[in-house]
Amino acid sequence: MKGPKEKVSDASAECKAELRSLRGRLLAQQQRIRDQKLPVIVLVEGWAAAGKGSLINELICELDPRFYNVVSPVILPEKEERYPYLYPYAKSMPENGKIMFYDSGWMEGAVRKYLHREITKEQYKARIRSVNEFERQLRDGGYLVLKLFLDISRGEQRKRLRSLKENFETEWRVTDDDLWQHREYELFRDTYESFMEKTDGIAWHRLDGSKKKAAACEALRLLVELVDRALENGRYVGKPFKEDFPLLEMPKLRDVDLSPSIGEEEYREELKKLQKRLGELHNIVYRKKIPVVLCYEGWDAAGKGGNIRRIARPLDPRGFDVMPIASPEPHELNRQYLWRFWTRLPRSGHICIFDRTWYGRVMVERLEGFCTENDWRRAYNEINEFERQLTDWGAVVLKFWIHIDQDTQLERFTDRQNTPEKQWKLTEEDWRNREKWPQYEEAVDEMLRRTSTENAPWFIIESNDKKYARIKTLRILVDALEKACGSQWAKGL
Amino acid sequence: MKGPKEKVSDASAECKAELRSLRGRLLAQQQRIRDQKLPVIVLVEGWAAAGKGSLINELICELDPRFYNVVSPVILPEKEERYPYLYPYAKSMPENGKIMFYDSGWMEGAVRKYLHREITKEQYKARIRSVNEFERQLRDGGYLVLKLFLDISRGEQRKRLRSLKENFETEWRVTDDDLWQHREYELFRDTYESFMEKTDGIAWHRLDGSKKKAAACEALRLLVELVDRALENGRYVGKPFKEDFPLLEMPKLRDVDLSPSIGEEEYREELKKLQKRLGELHNIVYRKKIPVVLCYEGWDAAGKGGNIRRIARPLDPRGFDVMPIASPEPHELNRQYLWRFWTRLPRSGHICIFDRTWYGRVMVERLEGFCTENDWRRAYNEINEFERQLTDWGAVVLKFWIHIDQDTQLERFTDRQNTPEKQWKLTEEDWRNREKWPQYEEAVDEMLRRTSTENAPWFIIESNDKKYARIKTLRILVDALEKACGSQWAKGL
Repeated sequence: MKGPKEKVSDASAECKAELRSLRGRLLAQQQRIRDQKLPVIVLVEGWAAAGKGSLINELICELDPRFYNVVSPVILPEKEERYPYLYPYAKSMPENGKIMFYDSGWMEGAVRKYLHREITKEQYKARIRSVNEFERQLRDGGYLVLKLFLDISRGEQRKRLRSLKENFETEWRVTDDDLWQHREYELFRDTYESFMEKTDGIAWHRLDGSKKKAAACEALRLLVELVDRALENGRYVGKPFKEDFPLLEMPKLRDVDLSPSIGEEEYREELKKLQKRLGELHNIVYRKKIPVVLCYEGWDAAGKGGNIRRIARPLDPRGFDVMPIASPEPHELNRQYLWRFWTRLPRSGHICIFDRTWYGRVMVERLEGFCTENDWRRAYNEINEFERQLTDWGAVVLKFWIHIDQDTQLERFTDRQNTPEKQWKLTEEDWRNREKWPQYEEAVDEMLRRTSTENAPWFIIESNDKKYARIKTLRILVDALEKACGSQWAKGL
Repeated sequence: MKGPKEKVSDASAECKAELRSLRGRLLAQQQRIRDQKLPVIVLVEGWAAAGKGSLINELICELDPRFYNVVSPVILPEKEERYPYLYPYAKSMPENGKIMFYDSGWMEGAVRKYLHREITKEQYKARIRSVNEFERQLRDGGYLVLKLFLDISRGEQRKRLRSLKENFETEWRVTDDDLWQHREYELFRDTYESFMEKTDGIAWHRLDGSKKKAAACEALRLLVELVDRALENGRYVGKPFKEDFPLLEMPKLRDVDLSPSIGEEEYREELKKLQKRLGELHNIVYRKKIPVVLCYEGWDAAGKGGNIRRIARPLDPRGFDVMPIASPEPHELNRQYLWRFWTRLPRSGHICIFDRTWYGRVMVERLEGFCTENDWRRAYNEINEFERQLTDWGAVVLKFWIHIDQDTQLERFTDRQNTPEKQWKLTEEDWRNREKWPQYEEAVDEMLRRTSTENAPWFIIESNDKKYARIKTLRILVDALEKACGSQWAKGL
């Protein structure tokens, strides 16, 4: 399949020797990757039949299988069409100390969909933006990211596809999509090129797919050098960066009037009316496959639980989930901090209620020192990006800060303490957190100020009167769903 | 929709008052369920339009959403067709201290498939057997299991389906499947009845779906009483039970001749030949969607890693995974012990290599006291059942015990100690385990004797000569795949 000249230079003894030596170096690095808890991502994109699988095989063949994994779009389950674009890639990010090879990934996911006209130009642009955000967040979170593009000419691709087609054993590997790509080779080439240009925050490396051994050598060399540098310099922690999100004006907590209340009769009427409408809207949301993400944060004893129950009451239990967020487990701490939220996202058409959220990063993790200052300072922007990726997907994202004052909290704590069946709700930690009220208030003010975006707004819910708070939350939710179900049909994948 | 008489008795003040009181009791139990770490499963099966969703809603409406979840076949992703029958249900088993409501489950999964003729009578019988095994394993593992069947007459179903169809908002809820069930009401009734008869190891409770409030009352009463008994008696630990698996004869480890070896030249030739064939077979396995599960166990330093690498080398990285099994994490310890293996199963068509397995239960967990004696004694049978469920699904299951003698292990430990790049492979724990060689040998002998079944056999791989071991393993695998790809097409879901 190759001209004699190429063959000589490609599989030359020199090349083979280098391959051996590089594999040895990577093998030796493996243990240090593990010890230093470095997570490594190798993204292999490229043409159909360019040899992505074989290239990966050359890279992994000496590695201990316990320290790497390969993920491939072929094995991405169909249902992931019902999740945000980056979901399958985010879900499979490696844990610390491991290498994940992506056998084609987010580039292919964007380019194919676009050229197939399954997404609009605008959506395609949003995907490019998301990719840049995703890669930067990974790098800033200490991930090593190597991006490879395996290139072959149109002629070479023709030869390879033909040879695959001719062999009974491999014929099935050539899909209609591949043949279509081949016919539209130039269109794809231009799109790949422009995609790479627009996503070069982390550099792309082009490899010549017609020279298998040389390409493997080059890929290995890049990987070994990347790892070497990281092992020397230690794990990278990204710095905070300039935000460019249009933010909504938010009041300071201390300026919030907590006196609003509601009479018993009005409460019952409103509750009944709003819950009925919410139940109806849930049906439409389900049919129209609109994803809904509700975020609850608030002071201890502010009434989150009861508020959530009033939302959940009229919902069809088949179509919603409540996700209580506790402190992260070891396998969660071992990955970028948004991973445990990515993996808990609802399918489109479902309502997911997060009882505490990713905002823990800029509250408890910030105040208790569970992450570095750079980590939580970066998080405002990372969260805004994450939430925009959700709304790009078509999700309704609403965030509620359930608010009370210190006196009300003390009253409720005391009540819990004195009521046997409520005692479990009150822990030593609640008392400790209460002592840090001023620090928390400062952190919450900053959070509200920096993350209330038009697409994913914060709502301060005055909850000194819990009934008032429930009605207000229900009304905000119903209004938002009316809007989403009416004019604003989900923006697509 | 109901006659006047029914209406009076159903929604009577008495019934409503009882409902309130029972909800209060369940609410009070919630905290104790959590404290005592009881996992609770409520399976709600029944006719289309019988009101399963509403019934569940009545049960959960006062509960704290952090302590329960609802799982429904509607939200089971399509891809689960490519997993074993019980996979979606096993995957969603609750963790300790939580309640999981199944809005229809394993009964519907078996009956519909059977009546649709998507599975044969024989496969249907296998599913009934699996259900009995699954439920017993859950109960023996300390789970509370409540099984409800919501019954309505044919006339009632007609009325409800019609009323759903007539309303634009609810029309979409009536599926062709539901209509077909209605037409074939008697066939379904007989099949449901016989299914319940054959799966009454844990009792079924029939509820009259035409009386909604009364049914909810009855369901709540059953649940509250079940929980009460469990809270009184503490968490149940099942006793070992009689095995009825046809077992293969296995030698004692001490009688295994470890002298077999292979010459360098023969090794190279055989390796090349077998790997080439394995690569080809992998293609066929992939196309025919045959799942392959390979289990590796063996002494420390026996050569598992190198052996696995030789298997992985010719495989297409898109179609296999290596699953290293370390000690369980908290969220894994919080569920039945097979859960972490259920959730790691390959899709059909993929090869999954488990580097250590569920057999930890009868080795390290047994010897280190990480589970009770009843737990590990029960495990032999539970594992045999689990593996039979895998082969029922059509999987090739092969188990390798990589075997060396004590002298060889000492040699390799010493070598690891003296070779800097191998030192990470040797831990204090390895030395401690070595001291317990006799106990481990006894446990392994018992394991081999009691879990080597025809459908999932153990192979002792003599690995004093690692090269001999690799060739032997490859040959066993190649032979098994030849057989599976040739005559024996996967037995179906």
